[in-house]
Amino acid sequence: MLGSTHGTLTTDSRRARVIACGEQPAPAVHGRPADTDDLDVSGRPLYAGVPDLDRFFRPESVAVVGASDAEGRPNTGITRQLLSWAERVGARLHPVHPTRQSVFGISCVPSVAGLPEQVDLAVVLVSDPLPVIEELAETKVKFAVAFASGFAETGAEGAAAQARLAAAVERSGLRLLGPNTNLNAFEKFRDDLDGPAIALITQSGHQGRPVFTMQELGVRLSHWAPTGNEADLETADFISYFAEQPEVGAIACYVEGLKDGRAFMLAADRAARRGVPVVAVKVGRTETGARTAASHTGKLTGADAVVDAAMRQYGVIRVDGLDELQDTAALLARARPLSADGVVVYSISGGTGAHFSDLATEAGLLLPRLSDAKQAELHQWIPEYLDVANPVDNGGHPVGDWRGRKIIDAILDDPAVGVLICPITGPFPPMSDQLAQDLVDAAEQTDKLVCVVWGSPVGTESAYRDTLLGSSRVATFRTFANCITAVRAHLDHARFTASYRSPFDEAPRTPSPSFRKAQALMRPGQQLSEHAAKQLLRAYGIRVPREQLVTSAAAAVRAAGLVGYPVVMKASGAQLAHKTELGLVKVGLTSASQVRDAYRELTDIARYEGVSLDGVLVCQMVDPGVEMVVGVTQDDLFGPTVTVGLGGVLVEVLRDTAVRVPPFGEEQARAMLGELRGRALLDGVRGRPLSDLDALVEVVLRVQRMALELDGELAELDINPLMVLPRGQGAVALDAMAVCR
Amino acid sequence: MLGSTHGTLTTDSRRARVIACGEQPAPAVHGRPADTDDLDVSGRPLYAGVPDLDRFFRPESVAVVGASDAEGRPNTGITRQLLSWAERVGARLHPVHPTRQSVFGISCVPSVAGLPEQVDLAVVLVSDPLPVIEELAETKVKFAVAFASGFAETGAEGAAAQARLAAAVERSGLRLLGPNTNLNAFEKFRDDLDGPAIALITQSGHQGRPVFTMQELGVRLSHWAPTGNEADLETADFISYFAEQPEVGAIACYVEGLKDGRAFMLAADRAARRGVPVVAVKVGRTETGARTAASHTGKLTGADAVVDAAMRQYGVIRVDGLDELQDTAALLARARPLSADGVVVYSISGGTGAHFSDLATEAGLLLPRLSDAKQAELHQWIPEYLDVANPVDNGGHPVGDWRGRKIIDAILDDPAVGVLICPITGPFPPMSDQLAQDLVDAAEQTDKLVCVVWGSPVGTESAYRDTLLGSSRVATFRTFANCITAVRAHLDHARFTASYRSPFDEAPRTPSPSFRKAQALMRPGQQLSEHAAKQLLRAYGIRVPREQLVTSAAAAVRAAGLVGYPVVMKASGAQLAHKTELGLVKVGLTSASQVRDAYRELTDIARYEGVSLDGVLVCQMVDPGVEMVVGVTQDDLFGPTVTVGLGGVLVEVLRDTAVRVPPFGEEQARAMLGELRGRALLDGVRGRPLSDLDALVEVVLRVQRMALELDGELAELDINPLMVLPRGQGAVALDAMAVCR
Repeated sequence: MLGSTHGTLTTDSRRARVIACGEQPAPAVHGRPADTDDLDVSGRPLYAGVPDLDRFFRPESVAVVGASDAEGRPNTGITRQLLSWAERVGARLHPVHPTRQSVFGISCVPSVAGLPEQVDLAVVLVSDPLPVIEELAETKVKFAVAFASGFAETGAEGAAAQARLAAAVERSGLRLLGPNTNLNAFEKFRDDLDGPAIALITQSGHQGRPVFTMQELGVRLSHWAPTGNEADLETADFISYFAEQPEVGAIACYVEGLKDGRAFMLAADRAARRGVPVVAVKVGRTETGARTAASHTGKLTGADAVVDAAMRQYGVIRVDGLDELQDTAALLARARPLSADGVVVYSISGGTGAHFSDLATEAGLLLPRLSDAKQAELHQWIPEYLDVANPVDNGGHPVGDWRGRKIIDAILDDPAVGVLICPITGPFPPMSDQLAQDLVDAAEQTDKLVCVVWGSPVGTESAYRDTLLGSSRVATFRTFANCITAVRAHLDHARFTASYRSPFDEAPRTPSPSFRKAQALMRPGQQLSEHAAKQLLRAYGIRVPREQLVTSAAAAVRAAGLVGYPVVMKASGAQLAHKTELGLVKVGLTSASQVRDAYRELTDIARYEGVSLDGVLVCQMVDPGVEMVVGVTQDDLFGPTVTVGLGGVLVEVLRDTAVRVPPFGEEQARAMLGELRGRALLDGVRGRPLSDLDALVEVVLRVQRMALELDGELAELDINPLMVLPRGQGAVALDAMAVCR
Repeated sequence: MLGSTHGTLTTDSRRARVIACGEQPAPAVHGRPADTDDLDVSGRPLYAGVPDLDRFFRPESVAVVGASDAEGRPNTGITRQLLSWAERVGARLHPVHPTRQSVFGISCVPSVAGLPEQVDLAVVLVSDPLPVIEELAETKVKFAVAFASGFAETGAEGAAAQARLAAAVERSGLRLLGPNTNLNAFEKFRDDLDGPAIALITQSGHQGRPVFTMQELGVRLSHWAPTGNEADLETADFISYFAEQPEVGAIACYVEGLKDGRAFMLAADRAARRGVPVVAVKVGRTETGARTAASHTGKLTGADAVVDAAMRQYGVIRVDGLDELQDTAALLARARPLSADGVVVYSISGGTGAHFSDLATEAGLLLPRLSDAKQAELHQWIPEYLDVANPVDNGGHPVGDWRGRKIIDAILDDPAVGVLICPITGPFPPMSDQLAQDLVDAAEQTDKLVCVVWGSPVGTESAYRDTLLGSSRVATFRTFANCITAVRAHLDHARFTASYRSPFDEAPRTPSPSFRKAQALMRPGQQLSEHAAKQLLRAYGIRVPREQLVTSAAAAVRAAGLVGYPVVMKASGAQLAHKTELGLVKVGLTSASQVRDAYRELTDIARYEGVSLDGVLVCQMVDPGVEMVVGVTQDDLFGPTVTVGLGGVLVEVLRDTAVRVPPFGEEQARAMLGELRGRALLDGVRGRPLSDLDALVEVVLRVQRMALELDGELAELDINPLMVLPRGQGAVALDAMAVCR
């Protein structure tokens, strides 16, 4: 009953690659994103249609395969629940059973072939759903749900069975939910709640229960998609669909593993374009968690930083706890766009105000100081000795009479204020009851956001249960932290949506002229020499030092003359790493004799160490700047990713890096730099000059282009260091490593 | 009524300094820590007595000064509440009023002089309590409470009035609570709850309400001390007292500002010695919060990192939210010592187990993999295909019958397991009700810790309200995060207590021989030259490079010969900063001519820049190592503090430092290094050698000694850089800055 183990099998969204320039086929819009033909240069789709799931959630007719009314059978309970659900939603229900004449008084057919009408949805309760699904795939049935467990979550054999299920529906018009799912989609939803709703997507039914239960606290829920093992329909499909539904104010997800990184991104992109917030718990913060998820469910949990980046790129709000998921989704579903970012904290205790403000400010909320005029206005009702600059401390008594509402209205009337938060840490009925009512009444009259934290751990008080939860216009929380998280998410999401530009609109579809040059340099299965790797960079317009590869001391001296003294000399060879540690780099050589000596020494060391060289590099010395690293790594779920970080010891000790999943635009490349803890190094510290950030961003974007175009050829790339020079002087790749697939 | 604004005035716990070596006076034990004569070398107390507050919390007789029964008077409500409280605790109550004959039928006296007996406690409700307090101070009344507000929280005038109140009681036997406090100490506590209790200390009554309300959830509360403005009795007094009460299992504090850093440390030390956990919310995470607290209450909010360090040194568990305060204090009050650190996560959903484990592991909890034998045992009752390695997934059904209890007992029986956590995210009565009961029953039979997270946001379910909250042996939470925080705190506190050694037992009482040498170097009000600052370090046995201060080029050449080539030369002068930026440092000089040239150049630059020099330093070149900073800063609340950090660009860009408040021992100095994000640099990265950590720790301890002994003379010290050489080679202070008071 409790869906607990979900074996999502990862699919690769990369399609046959378009390597020639030419006309693009018109995008084909299908329910299944895999069918699209609009691909980026790496062969990944740039477009995914919205599956039409109307008849899944509101079918006119339903078949229940394996229906039962025999006492003690698990399927009997399920059949009963489906019956009452069908009655509620007005669907005709047809039991299917090989031997029974009727189930619960409804006449039975022996197989799906015998159904009296074309059903929208077939719920398959039998323990081996494959034959039924194969049969259904031949019909015009739109949707099937497979409840049975024992698939990818149990190991290789189950994974194979799941792959057969997926194959059965792949070329058909049938969309499949499950296997290893449950009844959550067919629960009884409250229909007496108004306002925008939360749509819920969970891989584990048990984990979705708290959000579902929010209905008892007055929060409207419109849909629940329990995706289970995602043999066909996946989280991304439901995100796309829910983002298009007018009643959905926010989408809440509980994700154990994503099936297809690109499908997720395209779905999140759709939600971002439409301004529909997606809030998600994604398991996998730790390796142990990931290991647990992997061994336990047979699914791939993507490297967490990459998942985190992908979510951030599309404005998906990632939270850790189910309580945060509930509270954040509820606020985002119901809050309206705000005219201002300013948050005012209003309380009946100066201590509460100071405490809340401390935490809110730390979390990045903006608490503007109220104007002198506004403070004077508030002091009409609040004793003069109390601080009303923000936080506003009313001292308690004014909330018990007519002044309470005046104060709230006056705060909400301030154009700098978008959000009023009232933490009520202790219920004190003479004051808190009227305060709650005043807040509810005031919230009805404003488009601004009114939040209350009901701090009592009891939660059975009438001011909380009846007054506050009875209002869909007040966002009510139980903890300071969750209120701050949700308000922050709302403000961030509004800012994100306002400036969002879909990267898919601008992603490259055809290779650049660099591609052919680069392709010629690739050596399948090998690591390129430093020299070759730098030629790859040059092909993509990334600056490298002037350098020559030489194979004799005399040639080295000639090269030094051409490159210009002083020079750096390095041993060069494929598979050559740790050059500095081996003594295979000589810097600051200022004369022909030094160059000759260095050549001899480098080749001697190489011979001694048994390192095979293709020569010695004679390179231009580059002025000092800030050392960065820029690289490409392959992620199993998302394909190539681009990383930027601080170089040298910082990247090794502090792992101070930021990552993005292509495609991304310049604004994301700049945002990456903002995520670096050592960012100030680029801005100039201790009298150092500001670095050439534009050049650094340009390198990141060129590396992205390379990663996409060479997706089939390039396994890994590392520019380390990229020397970022002072503003206006560019950035130079001093060393590079590339591994070919 | 709602205590909201609390003006704690900071006191300096430094006493007349003992600067001569000699006999120490025997420690004088008084109620008031200020009276102690056992001082460390900086003049701060090493001992604080425990104030005897028995008669405050359980007085036999109480006077109410300003008692009233006139309708509509605020004091009437207070008098009524005190009457019913006195009746409950069996105290005789005596109203005091200048004109009334009786109040609520109890005969009145016109002033405290006319009281019919020596009362234990006088509650002073009049608006100007000073005359009454002065009168009480002349009597043998033990305790007074001043309710009136309008003191330090309102500004300078109020602060002066508060100082008069403090002075009135300072030399008397009277201890004063308040002013600006409330009735919280005289609330109605539930006396039907068993087990160890929480004792609560709050500066704001409103902020304490959620913890108090925990009684409605079955958590026992024994005391509530609302400290208000802390003119006399302060948070530290109550921590000391509560730590000695047998019924107190944990102390929960809400602190806006500390009055006396040392008093807090001594109180926390007492709690640490006795193994009584202290959990605290301390406002002031952000500057805005601090500003708010300061402008709003007239109190000093200590620099947050210092407060944080002081708390950590004494095992005080700092949390941010009141909900965390409640949940952590409740668990710590009731949990018993554990035989193992291992945490097992047990759930009826694999998803829930994976999610919880992910967050728990990230938070540092240890989730051991259960042995094969234990797993086999569990598989007697749990289907084979479910993962029971930890998390243990029971798949749901076994909890509904006799197997449920077997599974729980088998887990608790594992010697590697100290804690069992069962997250129940959705109530599902057929399973969750019995699961809750089984957990409660099992918890009664074990000393191990059993935690449940009841994830339903509703919280009115019977399994939660009646079954789980009805047990004092099960720790019940509402969120994953709070459960993890509390369990982590319990395990950390147990480890802390087991290895705790009070630093006060080993703190220096008399100056070391270094002190006289150092004192001779101090120049009141001035910044010392680099050379003088290094002599200060040498006085305390901290290594500096061989160096000579010279005033001619010829002397420089002679000095270089003595110091040994290569040498570094630096301009030297008091108030001289940014030497490198000004070009006043020359490194790697290898010959007499280079030294001569450097001397000329340095003096030329100094002349050109208008910098006055006392000479030029000719210093030994030191081998490369890891550059650190070590320094002393004065904190208004705690006095001198010692900071260690990574040097160079890291300290400037990443502020990667750790701080401690003296006195502290070697283990804390080592712990400081563990707090550095760039710690790996010291451990050797990229093939670099392990640094001489012992030498670094020794420098930190010597700097601490200096800070304590020179507390009256030294305002600031900065060793930057301290070059920490490879293991066995020591650490050398390459540059130093010292500012005298």
